[in-house]
Order: sequence, then C-alpha cells, then structure tokens
Amino acid sequence: MIKTDILIIGAGPTGLFTVFEAGLLKLKTHLIDALPQPGGQCSEIYPKKPIYDIPAFPEIFAGDLVNNLMEQIKPFSPGFTLGERAETIEKLEDDTFVVTTNKGTQHNAPVVAIAGGLGSFEPRKPPIPNISDFEDRGVAYFIKDPEVYRDKRVVIAGGGDSALDWAIYLADVAAEVALVHRRNEFRGALDSVERLSELAKLGKVELITNAEVVGLRGEGDLEQVVIRHNDTARGEELKPVDNFIPLFGLSPKLGPMANWGLEIEKNAIKVDNSYDYQTNIPGIYAIGDVNTYKGKLKLILSGFHEAAIMCQSAYQRINPNKKYVLKYTTVGGVQGFDGTKKEAKREVVQSIG
Amino acid sequence: MIKTDILIIGAGPTGLFTVFEAGLLKLKTHLIDALPQPGGQCSEIYPKKPIYDIPAFPEIFAGDLVNNLMEQIKPFSPGFTLGERAETIEKLEDDTFVVTTNKGTQHNAPVVAIAGGLGSFEPRKPPIPNISDFEDRGVAYFIKDPEVYRDKRVVIAGGGDSALDWAIYLADVAAEVALVHRRNEFRGALDSVERLSELAKLGKVELITNAEVVGLRGEGDLEQVVIRHNDTARGEELKPVDNFIPLFGLSPKLGPMANWGLEIEKNAIKVDNSYDYQTNIPGIYAIGDVNTYKGKLKLILSGFHEAAIMCQSAYQRINPNKKYVLKYTTVGGVQGFDGTKKEAKREVVQSIG
Repeated sequence: MIKTDILIIGAGPTGLFTVFEAGLLKLKTHLIDALPQPGGQCSEIYPKKPIYDIPAFPEIFAGDLVNNLMEQIKPFSPGFTLGERAETIEKLEDDTFVVTTNKGTQHNAPVVAIAGGLGSFEPRKPPIPNISDFEDRGVAYFIKDPEVYRDKRVVIAGGGDSALDWAIYLADVAAEVALVHRRNEFRGALDSVERLSELAKLGKVELITNAEVVGLRGEGDLEQVVIRHNDTARGEELKPVDNFIPLFGLSPKLGPMANWGLEIEKNAIKVDNSYDYQTNIPGIYAIGDVNTYKGKLKLILSGFHEAAIMCQSAYQRINPNKKYVLKYTTVGGVQGFDGTKKEAKREVVQSIG
Repeated sequence: MIKTDILIIGAGPTGLFTVFEAGLLKLKTHLIDALPQPGGQCSEIYPKKPIYDIPAFPEIFAGDLVNNLMEQIKPFSPGFTLGERAETIEKLEDDTFVVTTNKGTQHNAPVVAIAGGLGSFEPRKPPIPNISDFEDRGVAYFIKDPEVYRDKRVVIAGGGDSALDWAIYLADVAAEVALVHRRNEFRGALDSVERLSELAKLGKVELITNAEVVGLRGEGDLEQVVIRHNDTARGEELKPVDNFIPLFGLSPKLGPMANWGLEIEKNAIKVDNSYDYQTNIPGIYAIGDVNTYKGKLKLILSGFHEAAIMCQSAYQRINPNKKYVLKYTTVGGVQGFDGTKKEAKREVVQSIG
C-alpha cells in the first residue's frame, strides 16, 4: 500500500503543480496517471505545440511547460504510479481513502485531489472483433518503449501525427515497418510527411494506403494481420507480423471516477469554488479541467490557482489544530524534502569605514 | 479624456496579465500606476529577488517576471498613465466610469479593474516640517530619471538598498554625492555595501553616518540641508546642495480608493469569488492582492486566474448580447491589435507516393 498526504489523480500541469504547493506546506504527494509519462495532454497530444496564455511565457511548447514543472517540483520528490488508471475509491474508518488502479496498485491518503483533466485518455480502438485477445500479445495502442520493437515486423495503422512519427522512428529500430492508412492523404507536420515519403522511397517503410486492417490472427501471440484494400479487385491480403499498433488518437473519458459518488455536471466534477474546490465528498477535491463551477474556464492557469487554494484546505484537513501562516518563497525560500534549499541571497548589515 | 474598454488600476503582474486576457477577447486596456514604471512591487521593491512559486518557473527574478509579462502583452498595445495615482471615480449616466488621477488625467471606461496590490506605494517621508515646500524644487522621493542629477550636488538619506544603489549610481553622474545615514551600519546586498565602501575611500561618495538631515533651506529652490550629528559635540552643519533625496522605503496605502464606496475588509476590497471577482459596485472588479474573499491567498498566480475570470465577465458587461466561446491559444493563436499574429505551425494534409 502506497501511503501519502495528498493523492493526486492525474499528472498533467495542474496535478504536477499541486506537488509544489503541497510541498511548500510540507505535505507529501503521489500521482496516478493512466498515461505512461507525466504531463497529461501536454506530453501525449501536443508536446511540440506552442501555448501563448501561460502567464509570463510569451510562448512555450507544451512539452517544455511540463519539463519546467517537473524541474520545479523535483525538490518535493513526488511518487508516481504511471500507466495505471485510478479505478475504485474506498473510505476507511479513519476517514482516509484507498484508491486502487486497474492493475491493483493500492494508495492510501487522507486527501484525494482529482486533477484528471478531460478524463483518462483512452485509445480509440479499431473495430476488430478479437482485438482484445491480442492486447499485450502483439497489439498495443501506445508505444511506451520503442526497444520492444527492435528487429520485429511491425504494422502501424493511422494517418495522423502519431502514426507518422512512430513509423519514422521505428524505421530504424524494427526489422520491417508497414503503415496502413484508409486514405492516401496524411495529416501531420510538413517535415514528418516529407520524411515518411523519403523513407517509403528508400523502402524503409512500406506504405499501404487506401486499405484497412480488418482482422488479426494467431495462436496465442499475434502472427498475421488481415489487410483489406478499398480497391475490391485487390481484396484482402494476409501479412505476417509480430506487432500491430493502431494509432487512431485518444479520446478522453471521465472513466471509473464517474461512479465514485461525486456530483457530476456537464461531464465534469462539481466543486465549491466559493472556497476550496472541494467536491461533495469531504476530503476529495477536484482541480483543473476536470472540475466545473459557475464561470469555470478550462485554462491551465486556473488549475494552478485551484491547486494552491486546495492545498491550504487539505492542510487544514490533515492538521486540524495547526494554524498555517503563508510564507512567500521570495522571503522564505523553498526547502525540498530531498534536502535541497533554494533562497534569495541574504542582505548583509555592515558598517562602512 | 483617455477612453478604453477596461481601465486597469495598478500595473503590477496581475494588472499586466489582465491586458493579455482582455486582448484575447478583443478588449482594449489602459493602466494607471502611481509608480513611474510598470511591474508594481516586483519592479520597485525586489526586482533582483528570485520568486520560486510562479508556475513553470523553478526560479525567476521579479524583474524578469515583469519583463516577460511586458513582452507577452505587447501585441495588445496597452496605454499607460504612470507616476499618477487614481484619485476619484465617478459613474456617468451611460453606466461608464471616469477615473481622475492626482495630476488631473481623466480616463473613461465601461469596466474598471482594480489590480492595486497592497495599495499605492507612498514614500516614507522624513519628519522635516517644511519638506513639502521643496518637493519638485530639489526634493524627490523617487528617482525617475537619473540625468536630472547630472553635475548637481546631491544628498541622499537612508541606509537600505535604494539609498546604497542610487548613491553608487549617481557617483558617476552628479558633481557631488553625500549619503547621510542615522547609523553606521548599512543593510543591503553584499556587493552594494562593498562598492559603496570603495567609492567612499576614493572620495567619490561622501559618507555622513550617525547623522540626520533635520532641516531644509532655500529661497524657492532648495539651497542647503541642515545635518545634525548624533555626536552632540559636532552639533549641526549646513551643507550646500541642489538636491535632497530621502530614500526611506515605501509604505503601501489603499489610498483614495478607500473612499470609492467599495466594501472594504481587512484593508482589502471584498469581491464575489463565487463568480467573477466583482466588487459591490457593478462594473468595478478587484483582482490580485488588493481583493479579499474566503480562502484568499495573496499569490501572484491567483491574480492571474482572477484576471482571466474577470475579463470574461467584463466581456459580458461590454457586449451584453454576444456569446463568447473560449478559444485556446494553442488552437487559435494570438492576434495582436498591432497587427501581429502568433500561431502554431499548421498541420498539412498531403498525399504520398
């Protein structure tokens, strides 16, 4: 059982910044995220896209925003349970919560902060009837570690950025890479499209366009994909493979949290914005894009504010008899759990002459 | 009469970021600040101090925070009335407001956003009975333009950072610089204290310690300061000067705004945090450190959030019949009033082969 002070569900920008605000209050944090890396949408969907409305950054790539936040929270050594989805929550007699993931990992904390963004990102799966039989036996919807595909025969499906980028990347790793796409047009960054075109000419990526993967075959592990051409004269072909990776994007789902007894409105979690962003269940807060209230703006900068306010309330819950006096980092510095200390250069008082 | 959409009182970080959020909604802004430059406390009090709790900046100097915000809001070409204090407010028949400064400059807008921080920073004046007679006739409490002192005989009073830094700076500009301080100990950055000590040894700054300026003399313009030594044996001396600059720090005062009919609580302006940070007077909002509500944290990042929310409400007030749909800068880019356009590189849709 992983134990912490504030269990944060969702490791996007809001969840990450919660670690910092909690750390200033000497509260420990642990994050759960269904994605294999921190950063939420910013890392998974648009790491190379610029954001213009983060205060004091005239322009910052979403991926750099995440890197900066990771650097900022480092002194507070947060724990991470990544690639697992928070599945169930249970309240114990001592008023603390146990959150269990889809892989059975258990977490215990007196405060739960849901910073779940638009929900957990579920891959869009192609409608192949037996696809779930081959999950983790050749079929994957994310690429966590490209080395898994070294010297394998890989078929990727999709026509967007992810499909393009991974086909290009795996061209140098896998034994064979084929990219199957329903149309002949690809949608992605110009240089990705051009690079793929080159690799296709060099025979390093096989492009199978105007076609779809419609079936999977294998005894235990995946052995063949069935490719159906739009050109009915060509019909179907069987292609021997080790791996099939459909990359049709992600769709956000509130997921199992929808059944936690929280008040839901417009597919988001209702909170008390007149005070501390707490949900209808005391001890469970919702911050960032996952929450809703009158006037709510789904902006990253709002998640930061909500995290700061929420941590003060969490502090009161965890330390009911202590009075906390806000100290400014400019005055008091930042003292990490890892022993580091950052602070402004001190003034000196010195005689002259 | 200066006309704008949102008149922002206070050009600290919160006021500056309001320009950006308003600009995204195509609303024009104008800022009033009592200080001679934008940035509020960050520029005036601690430009070289690091702040650690601005989201996604593991460390940033307060002065750089302001520079970044100025860069971010540049496309929205805000107007500035600097070095003047908002003095009176009047509501016109058409429901717009006229704000007049202590120097008589008038501003008209349908929305007023008070982002006044801890109030306007008033210089602490030494208790010299006739000092106000010499204001702008040799006495100044701020240094707006150091060139004013070129080849003049200047006496600075004070023992902190400002006094040290300006004595050092003016040593190369003025004909003579004397620094008068009640004690012999100076409080400031180590290198400032060391540099001042050197300049004193070189005879470029005259240090008069354990002494106070207690009188001012002159027919019209300032001609002499009366310096009283703690050592009673030395008594008082008359020193011929052109300028006297007491730098005893600033003390924040809510100031004339306290008489605008706004609901005040704990020396701050009460706002409706359950929706849009509006005050008890419709059309007047208060954001950042100047406001108060249940759970309020006086953090810069909270001012940013409050600014974003407040601008949405201001938009509704200014455009009662238009529906605004939030557009993300990552998707829609930023279109400046100055004709500039920033946006993410577009994806291409392209055939291959």
